[in-house]
Amino acid sequence: MIRVAVNGYNVIGRRVADAVSAQKDMELVGVAKTRPDYKAVIALKKGYKVFAADEKGRRSFQEFGMACSGLSRDMVELSDIVVDATPDEVGVANKAMYSELGKNAIFQGGEEPDIAGLSFVAQCNYEKARGHKFVRVVSCNTTTLCRVLNALDQSFGVEKARVVIARRAADPDEFKKGPIDAVVLDPATIPSHHGPDVNTVLPHFPVISMALKIPTTHMHLHSLIVTVKDKSVNDSKVIDKLRKTPRLMFVDSGKDGFKSTANVIDYARELGRPRNDLYESVVWKDSIKAIDNEIYFFMAVDQEAIVIPENIDAIRAMMGKESREQSMKMTDKSLGITAPAL
Amino acid sequence: MIRVAVNGYNVIGRRVADAVSAQKDMELVGVAKTRPDYKAVIALKKGYKVFAADEKGRRSFQEFGMACSGLSRDMVELSDIVVDATPDEVGVANKAMYSELGKNAIFQGGEEPDIAGLSFVAQCNYEKARGHKFVRVVSCNTTTLCRVLNALDQSFGVEKARVVIARRAADPDEFKKGPIDAVVLDPATIPSHHGPDVNTVLPHFPVISMALKIPTTHMHLHSLIVTVKDKSVNDSKVIDKLRKTPRLMFVDSGKDGFKSTANVIDYARELGRPRNDLYESVVWKDSIKAIDNEIYFFMAVDQEAIVIPENIDAIRAMMGKESREQSMKMTDKSLGITAPAL
Amino acid sequence: MIRVAVNGYNVIGRRVADAVSAQKDMELVGVAKTRPDYKAVIALKKGYKVFAADEKGRRSFQEFGMACSGLSRDMVELSDIVVDATPDEVGVANKAMYSELGKNAIFQGGEEPDIAGLSFVAQCNYEKARGHKFVRVVSCNTTTLCRVLNALDQSFGVEKARVVIARRAADPDEFKKGPIDAVVLDPATIPSHHGPDVNTVLPHFPVISMALKIPTTHMHLHSLIVTVKDKSVNDSKVIDKLRKTPRLMFVDSGKDGFKSTANVIDYARELGRPRNDLYESVVWKDSIKAIDNEIYFFMAVDQEAIVIPENIDAIRAMMGKESREQSMKMTDKSLGITAPAL
Amino acid sequence: MIRVAVNGYNVIGRRVADAVSAQKDMELVGVAKTRPDYKAVIALKKGYKVFAADEKGRRSFQEFGMACSGLSRDMVELSDIVVDATPDEVGVANKAMYSELGKNAIFQGGEEPDIAGLSFVAQCNYEKARGHKFVRVVSCNTTTLCRVLNALDQSFGVEKARVVIARRAADPDEFKKGPIDAVVLDPATIPSHHGPDVNTVLPHFPVISMALKIPTTHMHLHSLIVTVKDKSVNDSKVIDKLRKTPRLMFVDSGKDGFKSTANVIDYARELGRPRNDLYESVVWKDSIKAIDNEIYFFMAVDQEAIVIPENIDAIRAMMGKESREQSMKMTDKSLGITAPAL
Repeated sequence: MIRVAVNGYNVIGRRVADAVSAQKDMELVGVAKTRPDYKAVIALKKGYKVFAADEKGRRSFQEFGMACSGLSRDMVELSDIVVDATPDEVGVANKAMYSELGKNAIFQGGEEPDIAGLSFVAQCNYEKARGHKFVRVVSCNTTTLCRVLNALDQSFGVEKARVVIARRAADPDEFKKGPIDAVVLDPATIPSHHGPDVNTVLPHFPVISMALKIPTTHMHLHSLIVTVKDKSVNDSKVIDKLRKTPRLMFVDSGKDGFKSTANVIDYARELGRPRNDLYESVVWKDSIKAIDNEIYFFMAVDQEAIVIPENIDAIRAMMGKESREQSMKMTDKSLGITAPAL
Repeated sequence: MIRVAVNGYNVIGRRVADAVSAQKDMELVGVAKTRPDYKAVIALKKGYKVFAADEKGRRSFQEFGMACSGLSRDMVELSDIVVDATPDEVGVANKAMYSELGKNAIFQGGEEPDIAGLSFVAQCNYEKARGHKFVRVVSCNTTTLCRVLNALDQSFGVEKARVVIARRAADPDEFKKGPIDAVVLDPATIPSHHGPDVNTVLPHFPVISMALKIPTTHMHLHSLIVTVKDKSVNDSKVIDKLRKTPRLMFVDSGKDGFKSTANVIDYARELGRPRNDLYESVVWKDSIKAIDNEIYFFMAVDQEAIVIPENIDAIRAMMGKESREQSMKMTDKSLGITAPAL
Repeated sequence: MIRVAVNGYNVIGRRVADAVSAQKDMELVGVAKTRPDYKAVIALKKGYKVFAADEKGRRSFQEFGMACSGLSRDMVELSDIVVDATPDEVGVANKAMYSELGKNAIFQGGEEPDIAGLSFVAQCNYEKARGHKFVRVVSCNTTTLCRVLNALDQSFGVEKARVVIARRAADPDEFKKGPIDAVVLDPATIPSHHGPDVNTVLPHFPVISMALKIPTTHMHLHSLIVTVKDKSVNDSKVIDKLRKTPRLMFVDSGKDGFKSTANVIDYARELGRPRNDLYESVVWKDSIKAIDNEIYFFMAVDQEAIVIPENIDAIRAMMGKESREQSMKMTDKSLGITAPAL
Repeated sequence: MIRVAVNGYNVIGRRVADAVSAQKDMELVGVAKTRPDYKAVIALKKGYKVFAADEKGRRSFQEFGMACSGLSRDMVELSDIVVDATPDEVGVANKAMYSELGKNAIFQGGEEPDIAGLSFVAQCNYEKARGHKFVRVVSCNTTTLCRVLNALDQSFGVEKARVVIARRAADPDEFKKGPIDAVVLDPATIPSHHGPDVNTVLPHFPVISMALKIPTTHMHLHSLIVTVKDKSVNDSKVIDKLRKTPRLMFVDSGKDGFKSTANVIDYARELGRPRNDLYESVVWKDSIKAIDNEIYFFMAVDQEAIVIPENIDAIRAMMGKESREQSMKMTDKSLGITAPAL
């Protein structure tokens, strides 16, 4: 059993904790949280040990009258590996503690690439994680881009990829963030950081990304324009390849009625997924068009969930004996990821 | 076993079908739908028989290549009772068919009160439903108002209730509806229809409602101002009474961190509720203030889910032998409604 | 000529500067700003002298290559009175400087009432401002409530006022603020600060306010419930009184098509108002209902503009010789506020 | 004097009427409207003759007690040319009437290209309009794309243009339209209609567009990726060319603080533009990047205003003697379009 600690219990940490609990070869040591609230109440109800991030947090747990199993450092000591799901740039401060205690750790994509020796996407570079003390699971947008660009590269040879990312501006529970009625952009950075971040995993072709923030809370929406070397590429070849790509789900606007990201989330709710999470990259099948040797399509990504299976696979890639295929299969089964229904 | 058909398979119908399936004393005959789409795909996956609303629909199911078990009329013939969850004002047209076939039926709150002999809220008038051929389960806003006003009336004697309802303008999957950045109101109707609709269930005190539509998709938000006869009323008496009221959940903005409706929905996701549904009226405990003999508080209602337990209880109230307490207990257990955790 | 300095050049400051410039008896000394940007560019184009808030700001103006006439302190020295339109709680820090330099000052409603000897609304207490060194113009919500409640009190005797305020969560250019899809509330404070703030101007009856933040950028929306002493009150008496109330505009949802706050803003654009500003309290005429001795209606307020005429009148009330009627007439004429057209 | 009638008085019609009134060589015959409301009230205040679209409309004007100068047909008879600003696909029905009366007409971009002999953008094909009985001013998105692509083509030779358009889902006063919290897309159409529509004006290179609808009410946001023949292209050459392009405004996110479309609209309000209209294509200067021979940048377009100068120029191109340069200069001066300030 791999003993896993989860440091940080917000969007990613909550989901990783549940996913770790669902693995037969892993044991959840506990979760660390900065303060008590309804999320902590439910963590305790699920039987998770809750640790405080620091002494101040421990006191607030006491005042709240809520069980607290110690400090996050205590939790780390009891574990083989830590999944660090603290906010952006807190992870880098935690790294010293993990090193000092001689523990392996996984960081999230909000950290800079150089925090770890490897930027990780299971289907791209699972094997390389073995032996690494620190691994960084890349962000939601980078993960989904790596999945599809790696697949297209395998079959058609990617020459250049361009993507416009319409980013949801806030997670569903981030009620302080806007905008309410505007598009926010960072024009000084074309390409945005997403393209270069893909290159930390897939270094062999340029990826130029342009990013907008829009007033939605569900899913980033990617508009892809991918030039490939194979001039014989056509719509059905692309469809065939993506259909076989793991952790990718097709939807169809016409036949199935997926006219918007709202329908995709509604579909996740119908599927009965916990928290209506979608771990899959969602590609509109009827958007796929190959015009000359340029491939166009729309893809959506559930920013809360897509990296969860990657975190689980990263744990095994670093600590276990399973092959990529074995690990991905175990992870997918435990999370209910199956071959796409539609 | 009560054989139940569900006519209409959108927001309410989908949830009623699942809830009927979860009852030991009920059998889901099937669901009727106007057209094939991802919702129908998943209904079939769940093992539900899907019927077409009409011949045109049947042909579209055939073209889609999807199993269709007949027309909605066929489904009704196989059932003891129909839950009509078709869009507003379609129910009234269906009523003739139900009558002709001699079937009992439950209509939703979007229909006019006179469609049925009784407007129903389980904890207010369960017993009156027995013997009725047709019953109307009142709308989400009316249901939640009836729950709390009935409770306050029992303990303190309601003299007059006023409520301002900030209505979510669209359900999460209704992507065509706005507004995007405005408040929509119907000034010509103060009181809005909600107050008089409460009086179809609780006729003994005036309820004056003012309604706004705002750009959100989750939960209506009620601001209540209730004058009571008992001049000794105070905050803690109100809290005590509401704590004992069935299908009511307290949240707290301070201790528990419920600062917005976004937190309430997030909480439902953490609870693992299917589709993150909340069947309970959600009252902010720390908002409850009794100033003289006037009670003020905030309440939120999940417009997709709150009437689901009421539909189940209405079936039993009309067709079964169980008492109100027995039925509500059976329903609540099957849906995971427990005494509020927080 | 009254020499007026405007400290702070965001939502309120920009408008006050323009309004001061439009008065025959006032002279705009200049405006102070923390940093150079497009707003400063246009201020200079209008011929306003721009001062930096501090040395750091002065350097950033220099780096930008933009004319800067000195520091805000220099500006204050050149003036008879300062309108402080700095962000909430900065005004209190500036007060010491104004005092030291022996200058009069007007603060905005974001400051605590005790910053000044008087909380001001022109039509309620203009005369009281004379002789005050410091006056506080109350906030947008308080201003509009004072206007209508004062009017109703004059005619019918207000016994108790209750109001639910659905607040726009951000100004149109505040792109960082949310929520995007939620209602944010502060349940621990019923009444919200608005009711007690009205009592700083109108102390003779209780005002109980409940406040929500909603995802809009234009106009706060008030739902009022006002109990009056005069039991003979009826709809048309209320309409007659409000029609004669200064700085109040009627709209009608039926005849004129005002179905939403979006129509009100559209109307302001059609009127050709600068920045589509509405200085008037906007009351839906067809929402006015008197039920027994309780008056119900909807009112909207343009949070960016409503306090502008009040600031101008406060200047005259403190520094000039004009009567209330004279000052309000001068102000209204200069801003294009006329008797309501509709 | 060219006698101009404006048929339709919503987003475009209202602005065209004002713009026609501001031209020295044109006379506004009147405007036609389907029903009376606040927009009609203000049209009358401005001194415009208001005509009813049909007999039913005329009766509703009478019931409203509002002056009505006749039917739209009467208005057309009094004019030399009609600007048809009726909703999409109504224009095609009106065309028969215009033909029958022997009148020239200008249609808007919501109509199909074949409604007129020419799709028009002033700076691309002004001269071709002479002699045409019917001209179609292309839509807002097509207009802005034509302006910049024509300019880039002149200097660098466009090989292929790709654009992702994040469309505002509703105009500010369209309070019924959503989505509220979703991205709506039409995956079945890549390219969306915008690219081919550009080719009705600029036929010599492919334009592949992908379109999304997002929950905003102000400005469409274009992300452009343009491959050019000139391999020596670089950032500053592109900036130089676009700086000289008519009806194009640069903004800068760093120096000037334009971080979002909200700032652009705020800027228009500061400029004192009527209705805060921006007739210019807005390009973020600091977004312009030439990577190899591919040019990337962000552009925003005020969907309500950008086609207004094009309509005025189209009138002159069809009916007058002025050259393109003369007409554009007259139009720009009348509307306050100057060389970009920033």
